[in-house]
Amino acid sequence: MRITALAGGVGGARFLRGLLGHLDRTPELAGSQVTVVGNTGDDITLFGLRVSPDLDSVLYTLGGGVDEGQGWGRAGESHHLQEELAAYGVQPQWFGLGDRDLGTHVARSLWLGQGQTLSQVTARLAARWGLPERGVTLLPMTDTPVETHVVVEDEQGRRAVHFQEWWVRMHAAVPAQQFVVAGMEGAVPAPGVLEAIREADLVVLPPSNPVVSIGIVLGVPGVRDALRGSRAPVVGVSPIISGSPVRGYADACLAAIGVDASAGAVAGLYADFLDGWLVAEDDLSAARTTLRGAGSSRLTVEGRPLLMSSPQAAADLAGAAVDLGRRLADRRPVA
Amino acid sequence: MRITALAGGVGGARFLRGLLGHLDRTPELAGSQVTVVGNTGDDITLFGLRVSPDLDSVLYTLGGGVDEGQGWGRAGESHHLQEELAAYGVQPQWFGLGDRDLGTHVARSLWLGQGQTLSQVTARLAARWGLPERGVTLLPMTDTPVETHVVVEDEQGRRAVHFQEWWVRMHAAVPAQQFVVAGMEGAVPAPGVLEAIREADLVVLPPSNPVVSIGIVLGVPGVRDALRGSRAPVVGVSPIISGSPVRGYADACLAAIGVDASAGAVAGLYADFLDGWLVAEDDLSAARTTLRGAGSSRLTVEGRPLLMSSPQAAADLAGAAVDLGRRLADRRPVA
Repeated sequence: MRITALAGGVGGARFLRGLLGHLDRTPELAGSQVTVVGNTGDDITLFGLRVSPDLDSVLYTLGGGVDEGQGWGRAGESHHLQEELAAYGVQPQWFGLGDRDLGTHVARSLWLGQGQTLSQVTARLAARWGLPERGVTLLPMTDTPVETHVVVEDEQGRRAVHFQEWWVRMHAAVPAQQFVVAGMEGAVPAPGVLEAIREADLVVLPPSNPVVSIGIVLGVPGVRDALRGSRAPVVGVSPIISGSPVRGYADACLAAIGVDASAGAVAGLYADFLDGWLVAEDDLSAARTTLRGAGSSRLTVEGRPLLMSSPQAAADLAGAAVDLGRRLADRRPVA
Repeated sequence: MRITALAGGVGGARFLRGLLGHLDRTPELAGSQVTVVGNTGDDITLFGLRVSPDLDSVLYTLGGGVDEGQGWGRAGESHHLQEELAAYGVQPQWFGLGDRDLGTHVARSLWLGQGQTLSQVTARLAARWGLPERGVTLLPMTDTPVETHVVVEDEQGRRAVHFQEWWVRMHAAVPAQQFVVAGMEGAVPAPGVLEAIREADLVVLPPSNPVVSIGIVLGVPGVRDALRGSRAPVVGVSPIISGSPVRGYADACLAAIGVDASAGAVAGLYADFLDGWLVAEDDLSAARTTLRGAGSSRLTVEGRPLLMSSPQAAADLAGAAVDLGRRLADRRPVA
């Protein structure tokens, strides 16, 4: 089975680890290939080094190097380098980069500086983390440098800040007025991205942030059209449970674009290409009502336990998405 | 007193720490200013980061951050970042860069990338290590990127390798046929370098490598002329004791340029501007014979304990150099 996933950071990475766990334990899915299209909108250049937080969360989580407690960054991490930068007065200090994690950024920056594309760099990084052996290809959504900026207004006035500054330094507490993805108008999907969507047997949307993760991937020119035109069913998992994001600030992001923080409203963002939608049991009735009101009659909504409280729970959730996709496989017109 | 020193790495840094110790304990020298002109020929770009080993040894040693056992690098160092680079297959791995040390290189590279000169960058780094408060100005010999290369011939044929590769990876065991300083013909002394030599009350040459440290500084266009024309006496300390370098591979470097590894022969390299020369007691007679034979009659050679086995011993040695310089102060024609 060829499965393509659009992914953000922590939630996406945990779901993908669950997906691999489900594939490993399911004999009829042996030999499946998973292509992950990762969000690069929250990439940032810090201290002269290029950081790709979402791609790295996928690498570290699937490769067994992640800090399990945080869900991002490296296990057994130290922070000596950044302590030195602070001592030298180098800003910003609100973004914590550990020494091991910085090894990834130094390698990425070195290779980018040698003229390699982000796709090529990501493939080299993924090789070290054993992704090819597990049947996983990690693609950045684009090799074009893009950056999600957030328009905010506070005592310093109205201005745009980098997404990471809003998310990490401001904890998304200053209301976002708008998200602007610098560079997106000229962005081109990375090699293989559109093919992976068009030629998949199943496309999954993990419970990643619908605005600043999945939403950014969908903004890459051509991606949304590929989803609409794919012969594969598209199945998603709600990142919202009972009106709240499981982690992160998806509610603040949804508020910024005028969308309710509800499982049904999030599915509405994907209405033009979504076939199946998994929500928490408690949200099932409300989600169906919301979606019926919006006229999304072709969408199949089912209730499942969504909390990925363990790799086992994540595998069960991913398995539910795969099963739903297989049941919906005949819902798409043959290409 | 205005003291200017030309310095390489470990030996230079330890001597300079001794010099500051001597100034601190000598009331009539209170308020002295020390300008250090540091060798940048062994600077190297590793992993996309600009490394200035000799400047950093001076910073860390004078600032109290050096690994005392090695004489270079940082105390309490970890090596997590480079372990990651090795895991990603990034070469070279023969040059060990610790996490704290890398903080310096990331800051330097960031600032250089912003268009600051190496002099400006070095001043910012020095501020963190408290050099200005101690009356010390650390100048790179030049802001022009230069690199000492070593012509070698081994089973891979005749070729030039970066000085660091010869020194660190090859341990100087492959004979050097020639030293070539790439970029030196167009190099310009950094701001303040020539002034610091011309306007000093004393110029000192610490026991640094006479070929690849002091010799490289002397190769910067204008530096040697400034030493010849300075009104200050120039006093040096032999890096060779009883035919051997105290540390490092000065003997291999001297062999490459056809000069004996002896205290007298090294002084001969500086004959056109040197006024005083401190050698080990055991070397005094031979050094005087060598230098008399070379016609260096104006040079005053004295015997002293040269081993800087403690900060106290280094202070005594630096004190001997300062005292000799003061006795020789009237030997130079008034400018």
